[in-house]
Amino acid sequence: MKCLSCKERYDAVEAGTCRECYEEASETEEELKREIEELRAKVSFLGFRSTFTDVLLLAVDLDSGNPLPNSAPVPANKAVLASRSPVFRAMLETEMEESLSGTIKLSDVSYDALRTFVNYLYTAEACLDDDMACNLLILADKYEVKHLKTYCEKFLISKLIWETSLISYSFAHQHNAKNLIDASLSLILDNMDKLSKREEYLELVEKDPRLVVEIYEAYLSKQVNTAVVATTPCNDD
Amino acid sequence: MKCLSCKERYDAVEAGTCRECYEEASETEEELKREIEELRAKVSFLGFRSTFTDVLLLAVDLDSGNPLPNSAPVPANKAVLASRSPVFRAMLETEMEESLSGTIKLSDVSYDALRTFVNYLYTAEACLDDDMACNLLILADKYEVKHLKTYCEKFLISKLIWETSLISYSFAHQHNAKNLIDASLSLILDNMDKLSKREEYLELVEKDPRLVVEIYEAYLSKQVNTAVVATTPCNDD
Repeated sequence: MKCLSCKERYDAVEAGTCRECYEEASETEEELKREIEELRAKVSFLGFRSTFTDVLLLAVDLDSGNPLPNSAPVPANKAVLASRSPVFRAMLETEMEESLSGTIKLSDVSYDALRTFVNYLYTAEACLDDDMACNLLILADKYEVKHLKTYCEKFLISKLIWETSLISYSFAHQHNAKNLIDASLSLILDNMDKLSKREEYLELVEKDPRLVVEIYEAYLSKQVNTAVVATTPCNDD
Repeated sequence: MKCLSCKERYDAVEAGTCRECYEEASETEEELKREIEELRAKVSFLGFRSTFTDVLLLAVDLDSGNPLPNSAPVPANKAVLASRSPVFRAMLETEMEESLSGTIKLSDVSYDALRTFVNYLYTAEACLDDDMACNLLILADKYEVKHLKTYCEKFLISKLIWETSLISYSFAHQHNAKNLIDASLSLILDNMDKLSKREEYLELVEKDPRLVVEIYEAYLSKQVNTAVVATTPCNDD
């Protein structure tokens, strides 16, 4: 037979689909692509471009409260901030200091990360590297911007390797990043034989032993489950 | 052979794809679906929810300038209006009456259409029927909201039938709806034998004869092209 897709000849043992299913699949693909086009146009329409600003965001030093060196206030729009973050909404809708002064001070952020953060709130777009993903995840957690948090977690999960999994695991715990916790824990569990030799392990035992306990609990639970699966009679035919 | 998709048996003449192409197509479909999920989440994130309002939109009578009966001012946010519509942006960024008074009067819209319009500017969502699609298309044209215009055009094109094609054609011309012009013209050209008998045809000749001339020009051009195709020797093998 000749494949309708790649046009190559093939044998019966290598057969894929009948003609009807091939045609249906092609139609489905076309429909999905059309839907993607429509959604992209929607994203582009909804991305916020506006010169109206009524609030300033300022990266300040945690201790002194002074603006960071080489930083400038980042102008933004209250309605945008409030729409994207329940924390900003609470700040701005009530008569809190930020609402009255028109300035929001952020003490756990570099100027670069702050600008990238604000731009994400406007457009849902950000160019990430490891460092920026961590910084934005911290902001996303603090200001409850779920969509950005998921975005950063996905990026960090895609970069996970065994050598950094303990640091990621601890970082994810600090900032309530459930997906990143699960992914790094899973990588740790696959390498338990090497775990206790790592420097980060000893540091974590010192700094936050409960997280280490969680690792061992997960390991035990995984072993028990594996044992159950292994001893359950197989009923498949 | 057995189809990997529908699990039915089929003959060689009904063969679709080889196994490799089937597997590739399945992966592609999964990827497209994942992309759709991500885009939907982005649309949901970018959809605007905010209680910050700083401008009122008012549906008024064209002649008297008074608010329409049973209507109320629709509160909105300048930044949202300016982000979605270059016309609103120009109104609001300069020291025009609308910017100073904080009220924008719209004279060619019902209260219902105005509320739906504003909601679309916030969320890119609207529930359409024929009437609403026409009303929103008029607003989208006037305030240059391209995304909404395309959305309404698509809806109206999906509802096109020969009996209403002349009205649609004339309406689309009035509001510069290129896609709807093309679609309704194409339907008119397929039914030229019945054209001159229709009442709307006689009305259009009376009201806007240039549009009727355009129909005949398109018809002539189509006939010439068809003749060229018919007389060109076929080089396919």
